[in-house]
Amino acid sequence: MIRRAATAALIAIGAAGLSAAPAGAAVRHVWVAAVPVTWNIVPNGRDAIMGVRYDPSETVFGTVVYRRYSRGWKHPMRNLPHGSGDDDGMPGPLIRARVGDRIRVHFKNLDTTFRRSHSMHFHGVRYKPSSDGAYVPGFSGRDADVKPGQTWTYKLTAGNQSAGVWPYHDHSPSMDESIAGGMYGALSILGRHQHKPDKEFVVIFAPMGQFQTIDGRAFVGNTPVFHSKVGDDVQWDVLAMGSEHHTFHVHGHRWVAPDGTDRDTQTVGPAESFAIRWKEKDPGTWLYHCHVETHMMQGMIGIYRVAKR
Amino acid sequence: MIRRAATAALIAIGAAGLSAAPAGAAVRHVWVAAVPVTWNIVPNGRDAIMGVRYDPSETVFGTVVYRRYSRGWKHPMRNLPHGSGDDDGMPGPLIRARVGDRIRVHFKNLDTTFRRSHSMHFHGVRYKPSSDGAYVPGFSGRDADVKPGQTWTYKLTAGNQSAGVWPYHDHSPSMDESIAGGMYGALSILGRHQHKPDKEFVVIFAPMGQFQTIDGRAFVGNTPVFHSKVGDDVQWDVLAMGSEHHTFHVHGHRWVAPDGTDRDTQTVGPAESFAIRWKEKDPGTWLYHCHVETHMMQGMIGIYRVAKR
Amino acid sequence: MIRRAATAALIAIGAAGLSAAPAGAAVRHVWVAAVPVTWNIVPNGRDAIMGVRYDPSETVFGTVVYRRYSRGWKHPMRNLPHGSGDDDGMPGPLIRARVGDRIRVHFKNLDTTFRRSHSMHFHGVRYKPSSDGAYVPGFSGRDADVKPGQTWTYKLTAGNQSAGVWPYHDHSPSMDESIAGGMYGALSILGRHQHKPDKEFVVIFAPMGQFQTIDGRAFVGNTPVFHSKVGDDVQWDVLAMGSEHHTFHVHGHRWVAPDGTDRDTQTVGPAESFAIRWKEKDPGTWLYHCHVETHMMQGMIGIYRVAKR
Repeated sequence: MIRRAATAALIAIGAAGLSAAPAGAAVRHVWVAAVPVTWNIVPNGRDAIMGVRYDPSETVFGTVVYRRYSRGWKHPMRNLPHGSGDDDGMPGPLIRARVGDRIRVHFKNLDTTFRRSHSMHFHGVRYKPSSDGAYVPGFSGRDADVKPGQTWTYKLTAGNQSAGVWPYHDHSPSMDESIAGGMYGALSILGRHQHKPDKEFVVIFAPMGQFQTIDGRAFVGNTPVFHSKVGDDVQWDVLAMGSEHHTFHVHGHRWVAPDGTDRDTQTVGPAESFAIRWKEKDPGTWLYHCHVETHMMQGMIGIYRVAKR
Repeated sequence: MIRRAATAALIAIGAAGLSAAPAGAAVRHVWVAAVPVTWNIVPNGRDAIMGVRYDPSETVFGTVVYRRYSRGWKHPMRNLPHGSGDDDGMPGPLIRARVGDRIRVHFKNLDTTFRRSHSMHFHGVRYKPSSDGAYVPGFSGRDADVKPGQTWTYKLTAGNQSAGVWPYHDHSPSMDESIAGGMYGALSILGRHQHKPDKEFVVIFAPMGQFQTIDGRAFVGNTPVFHSKVGDDVQWDVLAMGSEHHTFHVHGHRWVAPDGTDRDTQTVGPAESFAIRWKEKDPGTWLYHCHVETHMMQGMIGIYRVAKR
Repeated sequence: MIRRAATAALIAIGAAGLSAAPAGAAVRHVWVAAVPVTWNIVPNGRDAIMGVRYDPSETVFGTVVYRRYSRGWKHPMRNLPHGSGDDDGMPGPLIRARVGDRIRVHFKNLDTTFRRSHSMHFHGVRYKPSSDGAYVPGFSGRDADVKPGQTWTYKLTAGNQSAGVWPYHDHSPSMDESIAGGMYGALSILGRHQHKPDKEFVVIFAPMGQFQTIDGRAFVGNTPVFHSKVGDDVQWDVLAMGSEHHTFHVHGHRWVAPDGTDRDTQTVGPAESFAIRWKEKDPGTWLYHCHVETHMMQGMIGIYRVAKR
């Protein structure tokens, strides 16, 4: 009797301690390649809100993006889970992990078009200098200068200070044009015992040519349409790349910032990032956008649809 | 024994008395119209600090602003309480409420000059899509496109996450030029049991033509002069509209940010907002300004006077 | 009696344990002069990462900086402790104090070259209007307009809200060109019982001509190289001057922000400032930089070396 009671108590404590998926530390392998693509920033050719049309000559260009692959770079795979954003190369693979995990990112440069060096530099995680991926002549090694046809494995650890959402991006000699061309993505790292959200939306603000894009696209109808339903535990992963500061805003919603204040608009500067979570309770068709007005007018705006339960 | 009990009861009553007006949820009706005005950004014609003169041809223009009205849009009323800023249309009416209140904003478009559509889009409060006021062809309704002569009532709730200071602004098809012309204002929502400050100052940073303005005015002598005395519980409502980030600074003062750090300068980006409170103890004539130097040089600076007790 | 003595001893030990260095409030005298210098933004003449060379005609100019002096402005002294940055005038003297201290900054204008007025305006500390140092015609006094050859003593108090890192800068009639020319520095104020870090690095982001500088220098090899070893308690003092927002990033490291979140990139706008501390555990050669890409490309990047223990 006594032992049973003790065991029951132990189980209860264990459950409370673990909550969310029993998270034994894992080694997560991710296969990524830099691949050339033809990209259209405004596939439907228009800014529906302002009633402006764009010709493909203004919106289509050749570039290089990060693409997820199966083991050994055998065949390309989805970059993002269904519903987290478009699966077409911007952003690069959503790399999910949990605090305590080790991550091995196997990177191959398949840029046969521009034949530039590329690399991956990761924020938020721990690594040794040989996995930094940042080019400095005289200091950095092959991790920072992966030439066409070559590979490199970045060895990362999701440490105790790695919970949250973080960007990764090219930091090779071609960094400037590669980031302008869309070579960036997100790491999403849950706390050791944190519940996975029901929906996770990836929003990366970045300029692209004359446009201001979300995940490489401009204007409603081209930027991702995110979907949830009342009762969903919704997470927004908000990041920025480039040279400008932005303010992320969602209509009809508010969230609690880490400092305890309520917000509905939040600044995000280059390489900054944050995750916002809320329990959805406001059905309807809403806008999400950067509230910097010129950015909004240049395309940094999208649609968020919440279904009734 | 009896006296003790009586004392305890008195204390209890005192505590209730303290918790700021017993806050039974109210329905607050606000009547607002979009009205054409002739606006002068630099009424005294000079930048006193740099010793530069401006001709009215550089500083006067026609625009549309939000104006508070009495019930049924009978006659115009003050937009701001005495001492919170100038009462001339920029910013629009200061809409005050308390968490738990419902707010009904009755809006009429009296823009007979430019004859543009207008709307009101509110941050921080809860509402249904029909009170969102944001124009998206195919989705939005009359709330987002109130034509000259028409009206709309926005139904808002100050929910548990609505305490604080928030912007509202035009989000109609004319949003871009209307915000540039001054169609914005502030909501100020107290917590359920939060004390009203003794003084509340509204500071909205926004560009206007070649100037950087506070409440639509540029340079000391034109921007609001705020007054308090030692011992006052002072609140600054700081907001920004437009496309730039700012840093709000007050000379000779510091405040505690929600994260517990002490600050005297704080970033505010487009549509962001925060309330700062302190117990005044530093008498003198002080400057408050945006610390972005080009903005300060283009007019985003004012005077704050603290009298000895 | 015995119990009382024991209690007293315990209190004494407790107090000693708390107070790190026993910090009796001090009066700290600092002697500073504005002195003309010839400045080279890119002493080694190159951007090593991009492989670009610069001619001295593009990088050398005459300017005025703050220089620390011995008592009575007898002879010039180091502006920064060894290892906190270069000792050459940008930034100005690192003014260290502890909450509770009074600070007397004895300022002399030795600008015999440009013969401009100068001043010092301090953030974060308490002072009376006569120590504000900000020029407003009709209001401000000699503190804000110290002419060549003249002196002024600024009387400051490190109050309870002054712990942290704060900028100071020229706020005289020549403010605009003087800040552009490098007239800024930092106050570093420890809490009453806070431990001094083992290493303190001063990073001031500011534009200078066509460059984006750290402590007045552009590109790796010119900007400060900071050194620490594993186990060091490291503090970064991060500040910005000018008209742009920045994002401070250190490779291979993360820190806990005051709101409890983990960060490796943080926005700092004009006159904002923050101190970051961590216990060093990541050996290697790392980059620290502003993550605004155009700023990084224009020179806002440096090297941080961590030795193994």
